Amino acid sequence: MSLDTLKEHLAPVSDLGAAAALLEWDQETYMPPGAAEARTHQLATLKTLAHERLTSDTVGTLLDKLEADAPEAELDRALVRIARRDYDRATKLSADFVSRFATAKARALEAWKHARQNDDFVRFAPNLQEIVDLSVEQAEALGYDGDRYDALLDEYEPGATTAEIKRVFGDLRQSLIPIVRALSETESPDDSVLRRSFDPERQWHFGMEVARAVGYDFVHGRQDKSAHPFTTSFSVRDVRITTRIAPTFFSTGLFGTIHEAGHALYEQGIDPALDRTPLADGTSLGIHESQSRLWENLVGRSRPFWRWAYPRLRQTFPDVLADVQEDDFYGAVNRVRPSLIRVEADEVTYNLHVMLRFQIETALIDGDLAVADVPEAWNAAMQDMLGLTPPSNADGCLQDIHWALGAMGYFPTYTLGTLMSVQLFEAAQRDLGDLGEMFARGEFEPILGWMREHVHRWGRARSAAEIMYEATGGPLSAEPWLDYVRQKFGAVYGVDL
Amino acid sequence: MSLDTLKEHLAPVSDLGAAAALLEWDQETYMPPGAAEARTHQLATLKTLAHERLTSDTVGTLLDKLEADAPEAELDRALVRIARRDYDRATKLSADFVSRFATAKARALEAWKHARQNDDFVRFAPNLQEIVDLSVEQAEALGYDGDRYDALLDEYEPGATTAEIKRVFGDLRQSLIPIVRALSETESPDDSVLRRSFDPERQWHFGMEVARAVGYDFVHGRQDKSAHPFTTSFSVRDVRITTRIAPTFFSTGLFGTIHEAGHALYEQGIDPALDRTPLADGTSLGIHESQSRLWENLVGRSRPFWRWAYPRLRQTFPDVLADVQEDDFYGAVNRVRPSLIRVEADEVTYNLHVMLRFQIETALIDGDLAVADVPEAWNAAMQDMLGLTPPSNADGCLQDIHWALGAMGYFPTYTLGTLMSVQLFEAAQRDLGDLGEMFARGEFEPILGWMREHVHRWGRARSAAEIMYEATGGPLSAEPWLDYVRQKFGAVYGVDL
Repeated sequence: MSLDTLKEHLAPVSDLGAAAALLEWDQETYMPPGAAEARTHQLATLKTLAHERLTSDTVGTLLDKLEADAPEAELDRALVRIARRDYDRATKLSADFVSRFATAKARALEAWKHARQNDDFVRFAPNLQEIVDLSVEQAEALGYDGDRYDALLDEYEPGATTAEIKRVFGDLRQSLIPIVRALSETESPDDSVLRRSFDPERQWHFGMEVARAVGYDFVHGRQDKSAHPFTTSFSVRDVRITTRIAPTFFSTGLFGTIHEAGHALYEQGIDPALDRTPLADGTSLGIHESQSRLWENLVGRSRPFWRWAYPRLRQTFPDVLADVQEDDFYGAVNRVRPSLIRVEADEVTYNLHVMLRFQIETALIDGDLAVADVPEAWNAAMQDMLGLTPPSNADGCLQDIHWALGAMGYFPTYTLGTLMSVQLFEAAQRDLGDLGEMFARGEFEPILGWMREHVHRWGRARSAAEIMYEATGGPLSAEPWLDYVRQKFGAVYGVDL
Repeated sequence: MSLDTLKEHLAPVSDLGAAAALLEWDQETYMPPGAAEARTHQLATLKTLAHERLTSDTVGTLLDKLEADAPEAELDRALVRIARRDYDRATKLSADFVSRFATAKARALEAWKHARQNDDFVRFAPNLQEIVDLSVEQAEALGYDGDRYDALLDEYEPGATTAEIKRVFGDLRQSLIPIVRALSETESPDDSVLRRSFDPERQWHFGMEVARAVGYDFVHGRQDKSAHPFTTSFSVRDVRITTRIAPTFFSTGLFGTIHEAGHALYEQGIDPALDRTPLADGTSLGIHESQSRLWENLVGRSRPFWRWAYPRLRQTFPDVLADVQEDDFYGAVNRVRPSLIRVEADEVTYNLHVMLRFQIETALIDGDLAVADVPEAWNAAMQDMLGLTPPSNADGCLQDIHWALGAMGYFPTYTLGTLMSVQLFEAAQRDLGDLGEMFARGEFEPILGWMREHVHRWGRARSAAEIMYEATGGPLSAEPWLDYVRQKFGAVYGVDL
């Protein structure tokens, strides 16, 4: 009874969220440039109304009742738990705080754009300070048991702790730095083939073909173009991806599409019964990223995948690829090279970029690092981890938008997802047999079906920890990913890692 | 004080309306097919929330205050007047009625689709009866001074009366039937050129070029494809059109684009200060249609327009049009021919289709015609007005979606707009000099500027009657349009009309 009332009360919150997401999708894809200001008002209205409804006394009262007299079914209990979480997080932050943070973020975004363009960290520093201060205030308002950073992390990776991440990242770092060094000292595969001229229209169609082949459902989704690729959903039945095509760098388009299709497969796989409830979403950004990375790297950059895909790619680009063998193409898409920019990093070095940011973020939030010292700390860590020093802050600590968006606590989920992806892949392989043999035949339904069963369908009804434990039988660990890297890149580079 | 509070309270109503309009735009352009059900929920939520906010006691109290102590500025007084109108119309209809009507419309739409497809009027009849009954109930709830149909008309053409329309349509009909007969008896221009094969991509670009030339602003708008062309706006700064291209019928694409661009020019021309208020919309469907018809017919189907456009069109389709002279192309796009389907009708016979529907609608609402007798009445009127008898109800009284949408009172605005378009055109010409000379040079800013000044910028701040009176100095009349038709088509057909 109360449960139905709660669902009825929260369904419009989902609808408003979906509408806002569509407005944001439009903003990144088709919106005419002159419409920006009006769109800002519309989004603010939808978000305010959704927030008002979520934080209304009705919800509080219903949750109290439902907690005193809990429903029996797992999904119903999960609904109460997640609604409580959302309600608490939304009510703990005062309207005044939310408004001050929104203003600070808008200002920070503007400052960051200018600072990055003009390599002017000093311009951004006061805004970053404001973001740090407000993040600290937010953490204090939300509360935490262990580290202050836990409260921020919890927004993106519910249940994760700073201590656990520090432990896992510590293991990872210790083993990864020597691997990267060994690969840097070995001759790399030639990846110049990726920089040939690939007709954008054909790239687009090839990406669509691959997305369809791995199971992305175009009856309940579509792909469009945007400056920065993303996945968004307006319902379990309407999950869209975007991509961007670089005419002279092949990887941008295809791996972008596969990555976003990975995110989208997750959301398309959520039990439709959860639609229009707070459960119809990814359970954490780490789990979300585990799916995108799984399809992008463990499938899309695997040797057997290219056994299936390369003849198709060659049919699409017969002239461009006439002199390139399958094995060489596979090598090209797996070249490892320490570099300055996170979003351009390869599968192996990527995690060092993430760990660097996690290290700086936690130090800022703990008060162990002053904003003014961020460039120095950044450059030292880059030298330490990747053996590079950025020639400018624009290519260093100013490169990412996250801090300007006030998203402290977001970065570590990229690496958590990467680690989870291998743990999940291996669990699937234990159940299903050799997945590579299937990929080589273009068979992706088995692994997709497994992910649907163990990960996707639950939406937020199971936490990341529950999903990982149920699916893999153990906790988060860096070892499986490290083993995978040693094996795969040892083979690609012909070295013993 | 109260005025600012009212504006602040109503701005989110505009935002919710804009969001709903974007969801509808997406539904017709890009939405994946499997998303339909979720979209229905989202739209219902946005519309319910907008309705709740519009009809809240706050609005009633503020309006009472503002009417007792009226603001001075014209736009502020208009805001109070229009907000009162919207508030009254929204509060006069009970939630129960709105819900029953929505359900009936959804059922009618399904029934109509099947009935039309299978030429099965009997299938649709009970739904049409329900729509008529509910429309009568609606009219009684809204109230009226003269005819019951006035209350329905008022939704689309505020201030218009059934009596006035009957008088104007009476004049029109009396003169128009002999004109159509005379044209039917004269040899028509050959329009087979329009049915050649026109590359859709090139059609698209030519349409965009023309839309841009007449002043449609792509910084604050865009064109997409949809099954049925329409114009929509999410702000004065974001007014979008859609078109559809027929590969072997040229008129569909170009004239569709110009028609919608005409609607869009109106909405792009509304004073930006009115954005996010109830005034930021067309003041009536008649005035809206006057703008689309003006650009489609008085500009786009005029002789001087083709002096400018034809060389450009020929450059776009050099092979297709190699043997076609400008004058012959102009004749082709102005062929008059009595036909069965309203949306395919030419400029002259179109109004007969509208008058036929008006006649049947008013009789249904007045209780002078039984639903079962609609096919017979329709066919008799077709014979009477156009000399044709539909071979089926699918090509007769089942052809339009309007009644299934519950939109009784909508049809007459098509012809009102057509008549207004000539009255406005002539008023502009009195002020600006020979507009045709300008069109022949590709100069469309003068007429657009005049429409901006006299029509567009006011939004809903001036009623249709006020706009027509201020702009033309007189009331609505059929004579100017009849004179225009006699002159233009007399010349095209070489007859004295």
